[in-house]
Amino acid sequence: MPEEPSKPVRVGLLGHGTVGAAFAELLAERAEAVAAATGRRPQLAGVLTRSEGEFAAILERSDVVVELIGGTDPAREYVLAALRAGKPVVTANKQLLAQHGDELFGAAREAGVQLRFEAAVAAVIPIVRTIQEGFGVTEISKVFGIVNGTTNFILTEMAATGAGYDEVLARAQELGYAEADPSDDVSGADAAAKMAILARLAFHTPVTLDEVSYEGIEAIAPDDLAYAKELGLSLKLLGVAERRDGGISVRVFPCFLYRGHPLAPIEGPFNAVMVEAPAINEVTLSGPGAGGLQTASAVLGDLVSILAGDAPVHEPREQLPIVADVTSSFYLHLAVADRPGVLARVATVLGDNEVSVKSVVQRGAGEDARLVMVVHECLESRFAAAVAALAELDDLRAPPRSIHVIEEEF
Amino acid sequence: MPEEPSKPVRVGLLGHGTVGAAFAELLAERAEAVAAATGRRPQLAGVLTRSEGEFAAILERSDVVVELIGGTDPAREYVLAALRAGKPVVTANKQLLAQHGDELFGAAREAGVQLRFEAAVAAVIPIVRTIQEGFGVTEISKVFGIVNGTTNFILTEMAATGAGYDEVLARAQELGYAEADPSDDVSGADAAAKMAILARLAFHTPVTLDEVSYEGIEAIAPDDLAYAKELGLSLKLLGVAERRDGGISVRVFPCFLYRGHPLAPIEGPFNAVMVEAPAINEVTLSGPGAGGLQTASAVLGDLVSILAGDAPVHEPREQLPIVADVTSSFYLHLAVADRPGVLARVATVLGDNEVSVKSVVQRGAGEDARLVMVVHECLESRFAAAVAALAELDDLRAPPRSIHVIEEEF
Repeated sequence: MPEEPSKPVRVGLLGHGTVGAAFAELLAERAEAVAAATGRRPQLAGVLTRSEGEFAAILERSDVVVELIGGTDPAREYVLAALRAGKPVVTANKQLLAQHGDELFGAAREAGVQLRFEAAVAAVIPIVRTIQEGFGVTEISKVFGIVNGTTNFILTEMAATGAGYDEVLARAQELGYAEADPSDDVSGADAAAKMAILARLAFHTPVTLDEVSYEGIEAIAPDDLAYAKELGLSLKLLGVAERRDGGISVRVFPCFLYRGHPLAPIEGPFNAVMVEAPAINEVTLSGPGAGGLQTASAVLGDLVSILAGDAPVHEPREQLPIVADVTSSFYLHLAVADRPGVLARVATVLGDNEVSVKSVVQRGAGEDARLVMVVHECLESRFAAAVAALAELDDLRAPPRSIHVIEEEF
Repeated sequence: MPEEPSKPVRVGLLGHGTVGAAFAELLAERAEAVAAATGRRPQLAGVLTRSEGEFAAILERSDVVVELIGGTDPAREYVLAALRAGKPVVTANKQLLAQHGDELFGAAREAGVQLRFEAAVAAVIPIVRTIQEGFGVTEISKVFGIVNGTTNFILTEMAATGAGYDEVLARAQELGYAEADPSDDVSGADAAAKMAILARLAFHTPVTLDEVSYEGIEAIAPDDLAYAKELGLSLKLLGVAERRDGGISVRVFPCFLYRGHPLAPIEGPFNAVMVEAPAINEVTLSGPGAGGLQTASAVLGDLVSILAGDAPVHEPREQLPIVADVTSSFYLHLAVADRPGVLARVATVLGDNEVSVKSVVQRGAGEDARLVMVVHECLESRFAAAVAALAELDDLRAPPRSIHVIEEEF
């Protein structure tokens, strides 16, 4: 339960790169919401950057530590020191957990404090929380998916354009989807670290990075993708952690998927992870795999969970009105007499009601003629008025039929 | 933190229908795992059925109450009594929460105990946990998706077969995807209750069922779906809760989606929910929407969260070996000389290594001939041996290239 309203909580932030800066900003922006949800208002107790701040002093005046330095050294030393000082830690550091998980989780248990790391795997996709909490006692058989957005972007582009690996990698670097030194991503090492963490959580067994076999996408050729298309396949860099023959297998490799596979439509710099278990069938979580703000959001979610302590009971904080009339796009189906001027009369009614047509198909003749169209987004009341007016036309052979359409392009 | 190992916790189970029976079985099966994860071993304190058991007596000897009766009466009375007695409650009852949420959440807050309900919306898909905990302080702009599996099955079948609504509904009833009285599902009322709950959580504001406008799928005609296909659209029953004009809009309606939309590929009796916010872009959660065992799994997940109290620190419970050699299907690309007998020699090498071909495409001629094939699942070591042997053939113009394939059909 929340403690007394707005008791401050001091957050020590280690690291001020893309994610660190985004987190500092988000924390300030959402401080009020955190206080409302947990009864504790977060404030930065200090920020450690490469050039400024001193770790021991920041630790001393922090209640919680957020580690966003990356790499294993000195991050490992800092996180261990914080845990041993009895301070809960949030980290987004996959290499740290994949290489030193046993030591870190052991230190957290010994100190009786939380170590949370949702952002370490697939950023804001809540896969850590889902496996560790919702499915914490589920006999998980397999966790697999696309856990590296850079490689998924490259493979998607190669398939779409027919361009070669080097050309597409250069484009990914221009767009900020790949780093100047992309080797961790394209070699599969980044995905391997994430799969080590997921395997550890899913199977409750120690797994370290050096036990994960991985293969990258550097050797993929455009004609692999061209032939794959003919065979009805799409190519993804997959991470797979599964029970096999009384043990587990944890691997990363490029893999073709048949069109019907739930991971096949995941394109561009996105991530998706599937969890399989007899008791749940399969559950898929997908979303953006990276981005400073998205990763910072996952870090903030962990911080809130630490501050909330117990699971929250819902409490309304706002009194928002229900909006009755909103905008939407629609599909409109009209059975009309096939005579001159029908389309013009229909279009006039629509125009008079400020409803604008996006596409129209005319089918059949005589009694059976049909006008089928999609209209652009407009207020639902306006569309309803247009439909009512259309129903009055002598040209109509049956009442108009309409269905909502989501017009946005993803 | 877990209390002393295996301290028992007594679970009072109200209701013993499909979900209740599945939960009782799952609880017994996973009692050991729950004890390992939380330090408390669950045992049934009593089961209330239509013909047996007495509520007051079961409540008296329970530490936690699981409500799986359904409907609002007497479920409301029982849940209130349990909360007021200081006992945490897990429920899967969407109508109860959608109609009496304020009263129930109020009682839980007053008593300082948890009321959890992951199974009330989209069964085992962790949407409640995700919105309430991971995104608890995120400024969510929109929650929407397919939250009724029955109607999604019917619409998928209508689109695939061209059959009419009544015919497909009858088939859904035969297969157990629709109830004998399907009106709650097909009218949109079931989805509306779920959207009332999601809107309440996402926007931290009281929302009740009577504030949700809904429209069902009873009036959908086969030719709507036929025309939609020509326009590149697929039809779903959508639930939408979103911020609009300083308020919120919560609605359920049939809606066409363009092919590229993340919800378009969700077919059959599945659910998928998307959460949108500036800080997270969009996250999609999908999986089976119903099923006794799946719903029971979500209930068990909530029970574990209540028992765990604080968020868990990962602790290994097993020492599983890493399995090095596992089975997989592969794509195999061979650049070969175009002369008689090449395919036979390649096939012989594969056969000698017990690798069996699923499909093969031969392309080009002379120096540029290519054999591109997909082989059935086999041990990776065996496939590697086959590839090594193929590399020795005089017919090969370049080293063989291979990529994993996931062969399962979904």
